[in-house]
Amino acid sequence: MTMLGTGPEEAVEESNEAFYRAFRDRNLGAMEAIWASELPVACIHPGVEPLVGREAVLESWRGILQQEAAPRVVCSHVAVHVLGEVAFVTCLEGAAGQPPSLAATNVFGWEGGAWRLVHHQAGPLAVRQHGAVDEPDEPPILN
Amino acid sequence: MTMLGTGPEEAVEESNEAFYRAFRDRNLGAMEAIWASELPVACIHPGVEPLVGREAVLESWRGILQQEAAPRVVCSHVAVHVLGEVAFVTCLEGAAGQPPSLAATNVFGWEGGAWRLVHHQAGPLAVRQHGAVDEPDEPPILN
Repeated sequence: MTMLGTGPEEAVEESNEAFYRAFRDRNLGAMEAIWASELPVACIHPGVEPLVGREAVLESWRGILQQEAAPRVVCSHVAVHVLGEVAFVTCLEGAAGQPPSLAATNVFGWEGGAWRLVHHQAGPLAVRQHGAVDEPDEPPILN
Repeated sequence: MTMLGTGPEEAVEESNEAFYRAFRDRNLGAMEAIWASELPVACIHPGVEPLVGREAVLESWRGILQQEAAPRVVCSHVAVHVLGEVAFVTCLEGAAGQPPSLAATNVFGWEGGAWRLVHHQAGPLAVRQHGAVDEPDEPPILN
């Protein structure tokens, strides 16, 4: 998952892309491999309360990957933030060919020689008046 | 911010509560102190794209803390996940006295002898048929 000669940012970005590839390909084996097996794990899917623990998180992903109608999600606007042996990614998500519809956080931990996913949260982007996500924002009401 | 004799989970939970206290009290100085000043910082407010960097993040919080109509947000269902010198919290948020309306991630890094906030994301909980957030979920359509 990491490559010789690349810095941690590139390796984290590669793990982040591996997560979205497993999601798009509905590849449960790859999805199980990307999530950490020793570090603590949690996940917040859009609209629902947090799931805590590898078992609950992977059960949710099994359900998602079995949905044939689920869109093929692509990731854009990736920013990688490295904090030693933990890193977090902020990015946008959307169905392939469509404007991004979600903002996401992916937290990775260095485990067994690879950057493995320990947490994912995705939440909806508000629909803008002009349909663009890059416009300056009004200050949000809530945090 | 940390106390002698407590483990990292308790210290992280205390920093998490300090963040919500600064938010509720509209205390900009406390909010500036809770966010890391050396580690990389980002923030995803509900509905909008990620903000990256301490300056952009604190500017957004200055705007939020100036809104007199902003609700007093309380935090519940806190789960702390420690990964060495980084920790992340999953929790629910809501206006005081109301059911939770948001799910949130708060990532903390150990900086200068304290657990300081490096990332926050909050996203809306879906309104449930029976109004309770603790009911079992239907599998979400998107991740």
